[in-house]
Amino acid sequence: MTERVSAWALDGIPEIEPGADLAQLIGDAIVSDGGGCLDGDILIVTSKIVSKAEGRIVEASDREDAITAETVRVVATRAFEGGVTRIVENRLGIVGAAAGVDASNTADGTVLLLPVDPDASARGLTAALRARFGVRLGVIVSDTLGRAWRIGQTDVAIGAAGVQVVDDLRGSTDAQGRPLNVTVPVVADELAGLGDLVKGKASGRPVAVVRGMGRLVTDEVDTPGARTLPRTGPTDMFRLGTDEAYRLGLAGEKLE
Amino acid sequence: MTERVSAWALDGIPEIEPGADLAQLIGDAIVSDGGGCLDGDILIVTSKIVSKAEGRIVEASDREDAITAETVRVVATRAFEGGVTRIVENRLGIVGAAAGVDASNTADGTVLLLPVDPDASARGLTAALRARFGVRLGVIVSDTLGRAWRIGQTDVAIGAAGVQVVDDLRGSTDAQGRPLNVTVPVVADELAGLGDLVKGKASGRPVAVVRGMGRLVTDEVDTPGARTLPRTGPTDMFRLGTDEAYRLGLAGEKLE
Repeated sequence: MTERVSAWALDGIPEIEPGADLAQLIGDAIVSDGGGCLDGDILIVTSKIVSKAEGRIVEASDREDAITAETVRVVATRAFEGGVTRIVENRLGIVGAAAGVDASNTADGTVLLLPVDPDASARGLTAALRARFGVRLGVIVSDTLGRAWRIGQTDVAIGAAGVQVVDDLRGSTDAQGRPLNVTVPVVADELAGLGDLVKGKASGRPVAVVRGMGRLVTDEVDTPGARTLPRTGPTDMFRLGTDEAYRLGLAGEKLE
Repeated sequence: MTERVSAWALDGIPEIEPGADLAQLIGDAIVSDGGGCLDGDILIVTSKIVSKAEGRIVEASDREDAITAETVRVVATRAFEGGVTRIVENRLGIVGAAAGVDASNTADGTVLLLPVDPDASARGLTAALRARFGVRLGVIVSDTLGRAWRIGQTDVAIGAAGVQVVDDLRGSTDAQGRPLNVTVPVVADELAGLGDLVKGKASGRPVAVVRGMGRLVTDEVDTPGARTLPRTGPTDMFRLGTDEAYRLGLAGEKLE
């Protein structure tokens, strides 16, 4: 039995203002788009519009200062011609450049911070849209993130509700009957990436619908969210950049 | 204009033996599946079957020895109860655990190595399937890869032909007309992730069709492949694990 997945970006989401009822606007766009949600649909919502609705726009003459304010821990920095790249952990545990501070698609002199609690944002959207459409659906709040050892970025899940974030294969077996116990596919990140493929970056279409992955949608709204996805702390083999760790050692300082 | 993407896994790909004509078998499965390819289709092919067709099965009483043989450079190691995790760079420049050595879904006492040149494998499949179906299509060879700072794995592109691996936005602008020059969405990895969503890990369906992303499919077969995606060398801020770099410093040794 082959699952057929389809995905598309919704037209008709207006520019989001602080205080906007995002669930209402997304629901209206779904209705305009063709008549509603099916059971098992997953919505991929760009974090930027969640932030805007939640009023996370702050004045910042300097984006770098805003990044500093959102940073819990600096992992690595590297000067390059024209600036400094800082890889930092933000308060959501996400490690990346710029701490989720976004200065694109915002008014000059302002930056957009990530939602305070993207899993809670996803739960709110999920509950409201399930009530409106009377079906089980899931919501993933996505953001664009770089990664170590590979160029560029992909979209990943920073918030989730009503949908499994990992496809837990522990207990399953491969075609030879041996346990597949090492692999933990992070389906929430793959769904966020699919959202990016259909939304694009410059399109003004911040919400995608993914249809046909209902096996990942849960009865409950309140599921282990994207907050479970970052790996930080003692099991993180890259909690400090190479140069930073080396310099600590050279100076005889203690490594946390 | 909203792109609608659909994706599904192909039924009917048999167990692949060394020397198998993979393009023929995939093409037959496409025909059985419903009649052919459309212009702009992208096939996501699990590297495992490419390796099998190319005879990359080697006897290995010990998977760890096979990993060592495939490793160009050790990035970090960490002992845990029951073993050692090694993050290594393999000869394709890909940094991850296990160097791409696969011991699942293989006969006991054997392991499967990655294709020698997955971009070349993708080019071969692309050329053969374009000739058979008379349309422009692209091929991505995918593998499952962990990542720093996030749990679990996603599928990424390790080979590609006939399809853009990045959606180059340099020169594009955001909705406010400002340049989007920092973002390089790695669409090949997002496509590989989509393939994983529909193929699953234990399904025995190693090829997915992605339809509707024809804007990423190129006229040429021979395009910059997935070999362009790893970031290693001096610009890699995580070329050595935190503990490893610290110890070098403490010992007063030179950091490469």
